[in-house]
Amino acid sequence: MMLEPLRFPTIVAAALFVAAFAQSSNNETTTPEQRLNGKRTLSVGMVVFPGWQPMDVYGPIDILYMMSSWGKYKMTFSVIAQEVGNVPSMPPPHRHQPGAPVSDWGHVISSQIHATHTFANAPALDVLFVPGGMGTRLVDSSNNTEIEQFIVKRYPRLDYLISICTGAVFLAKAGVLNGKRATTNKATYNWVTQGHGENIKWEPNARWTVDANIWTSSGVTAGLDATYALMKHIYGPEEVDKVMALIEYAPHTDPTWDPFAVFHKVCWF
Amino acid sequence: MMLEPLRFPTIVAAALFVAAFAQSSNNETTTPEQRLNGKRTLSVGMVVFPGWQPMDVYGPIDILYMMSSWGKYKMTFSVIAQEVGNVPSMPPPHRHQPGAPVSDWGHVISSQIHATHTFANAPALDVLFVPGGMGTRLVDSSNNTEIEQFIVKRYPRLDYLISICTGAVFLAKAGVLNGKRATTNKATYNWVTQGHGENIKWEPNARWTVDANIWTSSGVTAGLDATYALMKHIYGPEEVDKVMALIEYAPHTDPTWDPFAVFHKVCWF
Repeated sequence: MMLEPLRFPTIVAAALFVAAFAQSSNNETTTPEQRLNGKRTLSVGMVVFPGWQPMDVYGPIDILYMMSSWGKYKMTFSVIAQEVGNVPSMPPPHRHQPGAPVSDWGHVISSQIHATHTFANAPALDVLFVPGGMGTRLVDSSNNTEIEQFIVKRYPRLDYLISICTGAVFLAKAGVLNGKRATTNKATYNWVTQGHGENIKWEPNARWTVDANIWTSSGVTAGLDATYALMKHIYGPEEVDKVMALIEYAPHTDPTWDPFAVFHKVCWF
Repeated sequence: MMLEPLRFPTIVAAALFVAAFAQSSNNETTTPEQRLNGKRTLSVGMVVFPGWQPMDVYGPIDILYMMSSWGKYKMTFSVIAQEVGNVPSMPPPHRHQPGAPVSDWGHVISSQIHATHTFANAPALDVLFVPGGMGTRLVDSSNNTEIEQFIVKRYPRLDYLISICTGAVFLAKAGVLNGKRATTNKATYNWVTQGHGENIKWEPNARWTVDANIWTSSGVTAGLDATYALMKHIYGPEEVDKVMALIEYAPHTDPTWDPFAVFHKVCWF
């Protein structure tokens, strides 16, 4: 009976361990499917066009960059545009709204990303990111349908399609959001949600949405949170949580967290 | 005496208004100097090198982009590197630590930013951003001193010098942090703070630091918060707060907020 005094704390410790494990296994442990995903090479594409929003594109890129370096995951990455070459984040001169004067955006500070592929020669893709930005309205109003045609053509073979910010316009116009839940930038919510797509269940109060294999995020930095959630969905939490610690980002993990819906007076009543 | 009953609530309302204004005028109203800053053209530079961290560079760029478009501020922007042309975020093969085998980083997903200027021909600058990233160690260990030489040469005429993440290494090596407070990425805190610079008061627990006109931020996404604070310092809160709402980012506004110091076990005791 020498060991008797140890029993109670041992049982408590074991119970606590089991309770903690059960808690974390709700959604925080890696499933066998996620482990298999970790062994394949993920082919990721990012659409760009003149007037791409810098962080719509580079928030997700930073997470992918870290998942492919300090994380243990194999990825390929294609930046896809009308032509191979540099694409500026400065939008070309255009009317911001029909009837408005043509704005010259030459005062906007700009940078250029190198597009590695065209819509015609992009490789087979598992995940396609579609960002938004100030150039979205120009692509929309100029009847340039290349991006939505690319989405229509590629969606059937994608594992995941994800829009950031006003990139949801391209998904809506491609028809892939019809009958589905989706969200977008709250500052331009009315423009995006009126006249694009059919029977889309637009969420006025969401950091991001998931419906089947289509993810849509709210404005700009919401892309960080949606990408975090998507990486966790694909691979499990282990590496992406380490990546968050390395990039020192505390992600918003509640998809209904959306103070900007209130700020921009986007309401559902 | 008809108005008598109104007096008390009126006085209370007036007092509350004055109190609220006094509170906000602590640091939330725009000063005459900040209004003058809003009338000048700000020349901003961003250093890049092979292996630049995507969001070290593009977090600040997104805020500058919005300040120069939806904000009312005039800016010019130069991306400055060894040569004009595209610079990859993928680091070249190198030893991560002395004596370690040469790592091939070819598996890292990459993208390229276009450098508009060289260290030799960059324009006059008001603000210089110095990012970090996986390429920092290579520049350091290969005795490539171009970046610190550029800092030494340009610092006397800068209004503000700001490092993101491990970009602090270049400031330390340039000598401009000697005797000053500074911080850096907490995951690589020991490497940055040992053997670079002299008598630097490294802050182990800071989202960002300000000492005279030198700002240093912690890792990667801390650059968003430091850039937000710097824009507020230069221009006052009006436009940059609108920009935060447009990019849907809730900035960390306390420079001592730093859970990652705890996570990475960076301690001062």
